[in-house]
Amino acid sequence: MALAQKGLAFESIPWRFTDKAAIAFSGQGNVPVLVDGDDVIHDSWEIARHLEAAYPERPSLFGGPVGRALSRFVANWVDAVVHPGIARLILLDIHDHLAEGDKAYFRQSREARYGKTLEQIVADRDSGVVEFRKTLSPLRRTLDRQSYVAGESPAFADYLVFGAFQWARAISPFPVLDTDDPITRWRGRLLDAFDGLAGKAPGYYR
Amino acid sequence: MALAQKGLAFESIPWRFTDKAAIAFSGQGNVPVLVDGDDVIHDSWEIARHLEAAYPERPSLFGGPVGRALSRFVANWVDAVVHPGIARLILLDIHDHLAEGDKAYFRQSREARYGKTLEQIVADRDSGVVEFRKTLSPLRRTLDRQSYVAGESPAFADYLVFGAFQWARAISPFPVLDTDDPITRWRGRLLDAFDGLAGKAPGYYR
Repeated sequence: MALAQKGLAFESIPWRFTDKAAIAFSGQGNVPVLVDGDDVIHDSWEIARHLEAAYPERPSLFGGPVGRALSRFVANWVDAVVHPGIARLILLDIHDHLAEGDKAYFRQSREARYGKTLEQIVADRDSGVVEFRKTLSPLRRTLDRQSYVAGESPAFADYLVFGAFQWARAISPFPVLDTDDPITRWRGRLLDAFDGLAGKAPGYYR
Repeated sequence: MALAQKGLAFESIPWRFTDKAAIAFSGQGNVPVLVDGDDVIHDSWEIARHLEAAYPERPSLFGGPVGRALSRFVANWVDAVVHPGIARLILLDIHDHLAEGDKAYFRQSREARYGKTLEQIVADRDSGVVEFRKTLSPLRRTLDRQSYVAGESPAFADYLVFGAFQWARAISPFPVLDTDDPITRWRGRLLDAFDGLAGKAPGYYR
């Protein structure tokens, strides 16, 4: 989404969970990794900073230093509230989509982290999702008043939040959002943005 | 804090909880109310917008449109998480500080809202504060990486969050924050900002 907002052409490479060899050149083992000419950058925040610094004449991802600092707050809110909240609902679906060789590692590492089996973690998700949706109140109230997190048009703060929902949509049929939620309508606008870039990605629902 | 950042001289008028007559000229019953020449503005968000529009040549409260939009998200997070979280810890202290004539209204309206007595609401606050501090994780992670919510110097997003802690500090001896918390150190920097404006306000602790 950040590359598309900047109007930069890019090629994306499909990647599997434990295929560390494919990104070993980046000096670490996590995606996303961006290769931009001679620059190799990992971590979505660092990638956004690189794009903003390298292409300052193109539409801004942060809207200036205050916007960048506050985008950091949004990123931390997503990491503390949205990602773990969604994970608890869809962990078993993620497992079921993994390549056979990745499943054992995923089950073992996640069950150790939660102290429960994957099946136990998602067992109460029909009630859990109600609680999860309540934690999204700051986002919902914001989108009641403006079209995007970043205001009248989307910017990096939007993609930070949207990425969590795109992850859920790609890997699980479970409805993490209610259809009648301002957050769902905002998600729809971002699925349509940049010639429908995100909407074209495979998903269980629009 | 916003007036101080803009470098505007102001007079503040002490006000009691139910003294609606004193602000009736604003056409409603809540503080804050700002009188700026012929303009009368209420609601802290609207006051900040007014100051930013009326004094654009002075230090910016929002850092541009994206910063303003993201400050709205911060405001909504404070309203959804920080204010109710603090209120549950200090409601009885607030009551005890009110003028005698205001106490009955406060007790009645709050007990109706929570479905409990004030004494019951705060009874478990020693354990409740541990949970409250966990909900501040997005703020804590942000202040681990930058001096202020808005980046290298404070702006309106900081005052939105700080206001909640200043409220707690003014009305209750109960420590809503741990002394060894990046949030406490940030609060200290804001108590010192603008010649110690906020630090000079009466409080139970620094």
